[in-house]
Parts: sequence; C-alpha cells; structure tokens
Amino acid sequence: MLPDRAFFDLLADAAAKETLPRFRVGADVVNKEAAGFDPVTEGDRNAETAIRALIERHFPDHGILGEEHGSVGLDREYVWVIDPIDGTRAFISGVPVWGTLIGLYRNGDAVMGLIDQPFTKERYFADGKVSHYAGPDGKKVLSTRACNNLSDAIMFTTSPHLFKDSGKTRFETVQDKVRLFRYGVDCYAYALLAAGHVDLVVECGLKPYDVGGLIPVIEQAGGIITTWDGGSAENGGEIIAAGSRAVYDQAMAILKA
Amino acid sequence: MLPDRAFFDLLADAAAKETLPRFRVGADVVNKEAAGFDPVTEGDRNAETAIRALIERHFPDHGILGEEHGSVGLDREYVWVIDPIDGTRAFISGVPVWGTLIGLYRNGDAVMGLIDQPFTKERYFADGKVSHYAGPDGKKVLSTRACNNLSDAIMFTTSPHLFKDSGKTRFETVQDKVRLFRYGVDCYAYALLAAGHVDLVVECGLKPYDVGGLIPVIEQAGGIITTWDGGSAENGGEIIAAGSRAVYDQAMAILKA
Repeated sequence: MLPDRAFFDLLADAAAKETLPRFRVGADVVNKEAAGFDPVTEGDRNAETAIRALIERHFPDHGILGEEHGSVGLDREYVWVIDPIDGTRAFISGVPVWGTLIGLYRNGDAVMGLIDQPFTKERYFADGKVSHYAGPDGKKVLSTRACNNLSDAIMFTTSPHLFKDSGKTRFETVQDKVRLFRYGVDCYAYALLAAGHVDLVVECGLKPYDVGGLIPVIEQAGGIITTWDGGSAENGGEIIAAGSRAVYDQAMAILKA
Repeated sequence: MLPDRAFFDLLADAAAKETLPRFRVGADVVNKEAAGFDPVTEGDRNAETAIRALIERHFPDHGILGEEHGSVGLDREYVWVIDPIDGTRAFISGVPVWGTLIGLYRNGDAVMGLIDQPFTKERYFADGKVSHYAGPDGKKVLSTRACNNLSDAIMFTTSPHLFKDSGKTRFETVQDKVRLFRYGVDCYAYALLAAGHVDLVVECGLKPYDVGGLIPVIEQAGGIITTWDGGSAENGGEIIAAGSRAVYDQAMAILKA
C-alpha cells in the first residue's frame, strides 16, 4: 500500500522541526570547529533520524536510502530516498532555497515525492499521479511550461564550476543558447520548473538522494527528467530536467553529443 | 523632518501590492511580446508610481531618483532613491530573492533605507541609527558578523559574468580566497550580510538606485559598503560590502590594486 499525502506531510513537518530552528543561527556557523557546533550537519542528521523513525514505524517492510545514516533494504519493493537538507551551502548562507527531499521508489522507479522549503512554507508534492503546490500564495496543481524553444528558456544550475572537461563545454554551449540563466538555487530550481517558472535545469554529480524526491514532482507536473544520455534519473549523475519536450530535445542534442 | 518607520512601511506595502500579484504569473512571461504583457515591467513601473505618489503627498519638498520614471529635484536636501524591483531576473525566474529598495539621502548621504521581500515577508529597515529585521522568524535588531579572515568568509555576487578585464581578475582572486561563494542573489545578499549570515558582497556596474536602499541597512548593522576604490557607495559603480573591517580590508587589498 502506498502512503498518503498526510504521511508525507508528517515526514516533512518532522524534518522541519529539526532544520528550521538551525537555519540562520548566524555567527556560530563560521567557526564550527571553534564553536563545537555545526547547525547544518546537526539539522541534516536529526531530520533524517526523525524521518526514518516514522518510516520504520509505519512502513517497516520498506527500504531506506538516506544521505546521513546509510541504507537498509535497497532490494525491497519500496525504498524511500531521503535528503534532509538539499543545498547545504544555501542553508549555511541564509538563503531559503535549500529543501527537504523525500522520494518513494517502487522497484527502482520514483513514484511519489516531496520538496519542502520550511522558511518560505512552500511544499511541492507528487502523489503518484499529480503534482501539487501549497505555499504562501495558495494551493494549486503544478504544471510545467510549454516553452517551444531553447532560445526562450530560463535555465538554472547550482554552480557552473561543478562541470569538468567536455561536460563543461556542453553545459556552456547550452547556456549560450538560453534566454536567461541563473546559478545557485539547488533543489528549489526543480520545484520552480515543476511550477512552470523555469524551463531547464542542467547539473552534474548528483547522488540518488539529490534527485529521488524531485523526479515525481517534475514528471507528474508534465516535465521530463533524465540523465544526459537519456537514461533513468533515479540513480543521479549528470541530470537534465525540462518543462517541455521541445526544450528537452534541443538541450539533449547538445548534452548527449 | 525625517520620515518615520511607519512611512517606510507605507511605501513598502504600496509597492508590494503592485509587485507580488505579478510574481510567478508563469507562462506569460516567456513570450512577453506575444502576450502583450510584461509583468515585471508592469510591477516595476506601477510600484514606483505608487511610492512616488506617497512621497510627493507627504514630502513635497523632497527630490526623487527612481529607476523607472526619472528624477526630480536631485539638488534638494532630501532625495529618495527607489528601485521598485531589484533583481528582475530573479523575479522573472520565480526566485524570491528580488526586493524593493527605498533609500533616503540627505545632502548625498544615504541615511535611511529599506529592503523588502514581499513573498517571504522579510523587511530590513535602517531608521537612521539602527537596522531592524521583521520576518517569518520574528523581529530583531540586525548586526553583521565579526568574521576575522577572508578565508572564513561567505561571499555573494549576482553573476561572475558581469566582471570584465582586470575587474574580473581581481574578483576571481577574491573568490579563490573565500571559504564559500554563491551566485544569483541580487539585493537579498546585502540583506543577509546585514543580518550576519554572509560576510562579503562584491559587484560591479551598479546604479545609484541599486544601492541607495541598501547602504543604510548595512552601515547601521555595523557593516561597511564602499566602491572598490574606497569611495562613497551612494552613486553605485563597483561595490564592495563587508560585515567586518578585517574582511573588508583583506578584500580591498585585492580589489583596489
């Protein structure tokens, strides 16, 4: 049996209780060795512990792949894929574009997912069929934007410095063709893509827990997310997400080369 | 007579009524020619009109320097410096790091200022002596962070692509020395600096209305903001803002060269 929305809300609320009070605690973060205190690591670990405890209690036969506390039962039918704080650099810097990512895989396919930003109180949730938004501007069903040309697209990536060698060249070729590109938005870029504000996200070096929660939110809003060679995004790696087939195809013609 | 906080709140609220309803309107933004509708330009213009009307009614002898509707009375004792939407690219992309900037200059010095982010409901306000914060995490007096070394600093800039020639080289030299750097945060970076989450912002090509509202918020929180040659920031240009004298001096040793 699949969990319901209320259960995902329970997980996200439990995580937010551990992350949000540690966001913007200020000076202590600079010298974490001196302070003996590292809020982002504490928040990450405690949030994952809280999420895992709820999953283990309610779905004891499910597996869990987490960023902080390792994996159990990855060969089970259902596996939860958790990143309690995606965007630790944003978290450390006080910018509310980090998020809690929670995905549910069934036989290796991401089928349900959630992106939560506790400071802005935005929650993006894919229920298995449809992606939903709830935030300060109300509730709505998410739908990606029908952008027809790469030259009209808004593109995001976390940092241009993460690309290397031919990947860097291909990324820059795509970047040169879009209408507008922005850096530094972590998982929030994918949420904005699902909501139809952004057309393309291109990244590399992602781990499964960086994408597990995102994939259903994008796909169930009408978007496409794969690796740069067109494979399944579920294991991470070099990732492209697009709001429309046209933008996907035009970007892939460059990235796949 | 100087205006009070209530008057700045009145201005920011009037601006938010024009900007926030046009934020994240989605697909229309992509093809603004086709749609005959450009939300960010409309929001920018209407917000400035609303702000100017209030200033002209309450302070008819003050001058105004605005981004959208030109300047009046720049030789008067008091001049308001207004950027209704700083960070139009963030606005267009759905990222809530744009802001409304309102500064009040007296004989050319920025003496009061406000940075408002209507979506996150964060307001940073300098009253002439002290900088204040009000947001979803409560109210507080703002204070910059006492970071002692550039190598411990968190640095922001809007885009590394804006720097040219030796400016680019000097910027990159600073970037290579900091602990963590992030891109893409517009005026929000300065707000985070005033709040003690970020230590350094380095930018170029700023207009007076890009900095007028920021300067008092930073200075009255204990920070330093000047041009790269150590001059007054009030007229824009190549700008450095730092939360501490140590970080300022170490970055300036490179930027000034």
